[in-house]
Amino acid sequence: MLVYGDLQSGNCLKVKLLLSFLNIQHDWQHINILNKETQTSEFLSLNPNGKIPTVVFDDGQVLCESNAILSYFAEGTPYLPTDRYQKAKVYEWLFFEQYSHEPYIAVARFIQKYQGMPEHRLEEYQSLQSGGHKALKIMEKQLSQSAFLVGNSISIADIALYAYTHVAHEGGFDLTGYPNIERWIDAIASMEGYVGMS
Amino acid sequence: MLVYGDLQSGNCLKVKLLLSFLNIQHDWQHINILNKETQTSEFLSLNPNGKIPTVVFDDGQVLCESNAILSYFAEGTPYLPTDRYQKAKVYEWLFFEQYSHEPYIAVARFIQKYQGMPEHRLEEYQSLQSGGHKALKIMEKQLSQSAFLVGNSISIADIALYAYTHVAHEGGFDLTGYPNIERWIDAIASMEGYVGMS
Repeated sequence: MLVYGDLQSGNCLKVKLLLSFLNIQHDWQHINILNKETQTSEFLSLNPNGKIPTVVFDDGQVLCESNAILSYFAEGTPYLPTDRYQKAKVYEWLFFEQYSHEPYIAVARFIQKYQGMPEHRLEEYQSLQSGGHKALKIMEKQLSQSAFLVGNSISIADIALYAYTHVAHEGGFDLTGYPNIERWIDAIASMEGYVGMS
Repeated sequence: MLVYGDLQSGNCLKVKLLLSFLNIQHDWQHINILNKETQTSEFLSLNPNGKIPTVVFDDGQVLCESNAILSYFAEGTPYLPTDRYQKAKVYEWLFFEQYSHEPYIAVARFIQKYQGMPEHRLEEYQSLQSGGHKALKIMEKQLSQSAFLVGNSISIADIALYAYTHVAHEGGFDLTGYPNIERWIDAIASMEGYVGMS
């Protein structure tokens, strides 16, 4: 199995983290987005959407979308509950992450860390702050009620949300006002098998 | 079971469609987003993210995020494959819908249909067109290879993507260049149990 990704991307880190926690053997092919390596005709033939992470299984089948990849590998493991409602709550967080969290926090981080805050994106950067804090407040509320996002053990909901939350400061989001998020970040980062971005 | 929603919203229509196809009894509470009915303290106590659709089960448990709701009701039915890889491909489309389709096509439709193309959003409206067409091209490619998005029978991937695609023209997207999408729209709209936006 080959995973195309970049560990500096939260979407890719999610996959690396779960594969590491589950001790699943894989090859990792580093892809540089800034060099447009996801836009080559060869890459687009694997994933027409031109995004990473992208997984190619040994039989040639391809799977894209970070949270779909997490779902695939988590099925049948403790990282995805078997209870129907609890499982749906995990998916609720996965969709929340892609719609209400990543487009604010990951994009602000990209503008600040990778683009160096260019003048023409400053207004957009500022406008992303309120949406990012709204997402963080929703997470903080849940994490004040349970140790992890769904119940009291880690699931792929936590892995998906951890990815960009633990580097939210690189997008201008100060986490000191979110003590339960900070506690949760520390808990995940101290788990056996943990891998970070570097 | 009570579903809070607005049938003019594709995200809500998805849920109505699946419940209708599966013949699942429910009450439907119409919510007017433009009147900020999702931002009342009462509604926010159900869904802190202030979005519809939101489902409240008879035991008081709440489920949000349209595609998580689809996953919940589709589990164990023909609308979600049991094969592990096929199921993951359905989720791939669900995440694609929320990240690469809805933010372009649904938002352009909102600006055109509900806001009447205000001057201050014209530039944004124009900028959404290329992302929307990119998503439509990816769908067209798949639908030129299979009758539905995952294989040859309908799944929640189709229901999720159908919702805003069949009204894409209301956001300025001409579908006549996408013959397989048009064929697929007609196939879904002619199914037993189909319900539309009106």
